[in-house]
Amino acid sequence: MAWDPALEAAFHPKVVAMVGISSDARPGMRRGPGGANFIISYEQLGFKGRIHPVNPKATEIMGRKAYPNVASIPEPIDLVVVSVPAQALPEVLEDCIAANARNIHVFTAGFEETGEAERIELGHRVREIAERGGLRIIGPNCMGLYIPSGGVGSFDRLPQESGPVAFVSQSGGHLNWFSHYGQNYGIRFSKAISFGNAYVLDSTDYLEYFATDPETGIICMYLEGVKDGRKLLQQVRTINRVKPIVLWKAGLTEDGTRAVASHTASLAGQEGIWRGFFTQTGAVPVQSLEEMAEMAMTFLYVKQPPGKRVSVIGLGGGTSVASADVCNREGLDVPALTEETQAELKKFIPIAGSSVRNPLDTGLVFRNINDLQREVELVTTDPNIDMLIIRPHLDMVSAGDSEDASKVIDYLIDICRNNPHGKPVVLVFHSFSNDPKELEVRLRLQVELPGQGIPVYSSLNAACRALFRLYEYHRFQKALTTENL
Amino acid sequence: MAWDPALEAAFHPKVVAMVGISSDARPGMRRGPGGANFIISYEQLGFKGRIHPVNPKATEIMGRKAYPNVASIPEPIDLVVVSVPAQALPEVLEDCIAANARNIHVFTAGFEETGEAERIELGHRVREIAERGGLRIIGPNCMGLYIPSGGVGSFDRLPQESGPVAFVSQSGGHLNWFSHYGQNYGIRFSKAISFGNAYVLDSTDYLEYFATDPETGIICMYLEGVKDGRKLLQQVRTINRVKPIVLWKAGLTEDGTRAVASHTASLAGQEGIWRGFFTQTGAVPVQSLEEMAEMAMTFLYVKQPPGKRVSVIGLGGGTSVASADVCNREGLDVPALTEETQAELKKFIPIAGSSVRNPLDTGLVFRNINDLQREVELVTTDPNIDMLIIRPHLDMVSAGDSEDASKVIDYLIDICRNNPHGKPVVLVFHSFSNDPKELEVRLRLQVELPGQGIPVYSSLNAACRALFRLYEYHRFQKALTTENL
Repeated sequence: MAWDPALEAAFHPKVVAMVGISSDARPGMRRGPGGANFIISYEQLGFKGRIHPVNPKATEIMGRKAYPNVASIPEPIDLVVVSVPAQALPEVLEDCIAANARNIHVFTAGFEETGEAERIELGHRVREIAERGGLRIIGPNCMGLYIPSGGVGSFDRLPQESGPVAFVSQSGGHLNWFSHYGQNYGIRFSKAISFGNAYVLDSTDYLEYFATDPETGIICMYLEGVKDGRKLLQQVRTINRVKPIVLWKAGLTEDGTRAVASHTASLAGQEGIWRGFFTQTGAVPVQSLEEMAEMAMTFLYVKQPPGKRVSVIGLGGGTSVASADVCNREGLDVPALTEETQAELKKFIPIAGSSVRNPLDTGLVFRNINDLQREVELVTTDPNIDMLIIRPHLDMVSAGDSEDASKVIDYLIDICRNNPHGKPVVLVFHSFSNDPKELEVRLRLQVELPGQGIPVYSSLNAACRALFRLYEYHRFQKALTTENL
Repeated sequence: MAWDPALEAAFHPKVVAMVGISSDARPGMRRGPGGANFIISYEQLGFKGRIHPVNPKATEIMGRKAYPNVASIPEPIDLVVVSVPAQALPEVLEDCIAANARNIHVFTAGFEETGEAERIELGHRVREIAERGGLRIIGPNCMGLYIPSGGVGSFDRLPQESGPVAFVSQSGGHLNWFSHYGQNYGIRFSKAISFGNAYVLDSTDYLEYFATDPETGIICMYLEGVKDGRKLLQQVRTINRVKPIVLWKAGLTEDGTRAVASHTASLAGQEGIWRGFFTQTGAVPVQSLEEMAEMAMTFLYVKQPPGKRVSVIGLGGGTSVASADVCNREGLDVPALTEETQAELKKFIPIAGSSVRNPLDTGLVFRNINDLQREVELVTTDPNIDMLIIRPHLDMVSAGDSEDASKVIDYLIDICRNNPHGKPVVLVFHSFSNDPKELEVRLRLQVELPGQGIPVYSSLNAACRALFRLYEYHRFQKALTTENL
């Protein structure tokens, strides 16, 4: 399937039919997911088109005229959202065919993923109807779409702002988590799609769309299985060169594979094959939503580092040792600063209880904006160093003068934005104190700064992992370019 | 060194000399660590003995008579705490010898860890004086002691309550973090010691003390290097049988080894040798303070599981897949529940959008206390299952009736305490919503419940890692017993 104007219509629909909304649905109700919650979510996102509820037992639902079926809606339908019980799905799909409505988001679950013979058979019937009618089914067994620019959503209180990140997910729960928590990582979405059992449209179809979607610059994927692995491999290899692809392939362990069967009934595939997939495509592998969010944040806000030699500025000798271990284990190098840099640093860093080699154990600089500036300048001009992780110690920042404290935070924001001397600078906040007020400050900084384009990581491990993957991504692309010359 | 009454005197001192307190020290001042901060920390912890400041330039410091030197203090001294600059240390130690004060906590840093020739030489002189005078030096370059039962501490606002966990740390920063954050994991300390460069007393000496210390039941260690590796191995192997030893050996990577040299100037040793150490001793390996705290919490509050087959109750099919992957990767098995259990569960769990195999994707039970109880009872009596991880979904808990919500939390606390059918139950809170209020509830539960003896983990990975290590610990001990028959 090449770029599909029908998909575009589904993503920015003018007219939506919602089938399976309870006749007693009212705004603000909280039941299970699906049904009237879709209307609520669309409304919250400022959907500008028309929504037509379909329910043969109602004449009006949530202030809208209800229709007995899709075919009786008196205008062309861009998208149908179906929340009926599984047994009723075939009839609804026949209705859609009669109405010439082709784009169908099927929320309805309860097919082959249950493992029960009659429901597996029901799934076969649904597939047959879809094929016969040329239906473009998103799902079944999925939460469907979150498209802020189209006013389309599946969950409560989703952010209204759009951004350049696309998410293709075989799990609705992951879509829920990512579309809510993404903002804590400075992530806004172009389009996010949960596609469940993938009866018709599969990850490769969505990927093809995102390859040319002008709204999308970074693509995140959560996959349990894929129908056409070879196609996915070729697509990812090509698209990844232009739009970084962050991919979580789940269900690769023995018990994970079994869990996939219970969830989307996909074939999970073998770990070795998928390892080869990443080697050949250069896609960025992650293993959790947090890692995925951190990686998307990294592509959004961290410049390409010239190499993988990192410097770490923090407080504490034990912390320095742990930092060096973590960096090394995640693939980064922590070389000693040059003798010249060390000599310059020793001019204002006391020798006892500190270290200026690397990692730098120089906590007092977090109390003194001048020393901090001088240190960062020296480290980022050091020829041994390609990037810098700063671990501001909140006990130290807040122990200083409060005017200094806010200057320190402002300065840190500034250098993270500006990549001094072409070297990325990122933050990991740290604290010894268990004071609830300090914890609150830390959480606030951690959540607010990424929204301003500042890469803040929840832990040093997370920062190193993301920076190494960023380095690897660019290294792979460079090797591809050389190969093709 | 066998059990040492002198060490006991140092840990519960009646008379302490503090050398190197500024003459202008006053309560509430916040400078760098050391000096008057020791007096403040002792006072905060309700120290019942007498503190004598030593400073030849003062007659009174912080309301106490100041003495020109240690020898002029007119009573026997149980512990000397030294915060003078490195160059002044030899003279202070001679003074201690003259005063017949043998237990010395040397906060002073700036010796071989600086890498500078004259300071290496200074370190040699200090060692010679210590040996000649029979001084039991804790340090130098260390934060020293945190002993709540003795009113002895090094940091601001330390918890006053004692508990069964000992911490032996070559890093003062780690001591600071652990003694503050430990309470979030339900951890209280018998004695925590930071011992820095270990001129005289090394980890093996402290370990020997803790082996017979009636206050101590679990021993945590952070080591950068060790002088007598063979001795440590024999000790750990023996003591670990009675008191679990959780050990973080840092500095095993290339850059970590270099960082150790800059910190405590220890020899870090090779990774392979330390791998053998863990295999032979059965000590529990960790690689961060968080892991150490989680492991101590686990030994405190989680019963020995009969095996390593885990069940996970949560919400979301994608989350179930990820859960199975995580459990498997951390060493646990996630078998399907028996057909009988599944059949019983299907009587009240809807088939569509759920799974009752394992992991259980049954989010609605978090809204209904009866269903939750019924499910937990079925899972914990299932012969395929040895332990249970519950991931209460706060969105679901709070979406239900608020009376039900508090019943759900109470019930979860109850089953975690009671290990139904001899099977441990632990919690990992989860949430889709980014609502600050819900985040606050989650953080509060995560921090408060461990203080009540409820094992709550920050992530599923953390829970699996700790449970697998707990299983491995008991398996090792059982194998040792069989071996010795």
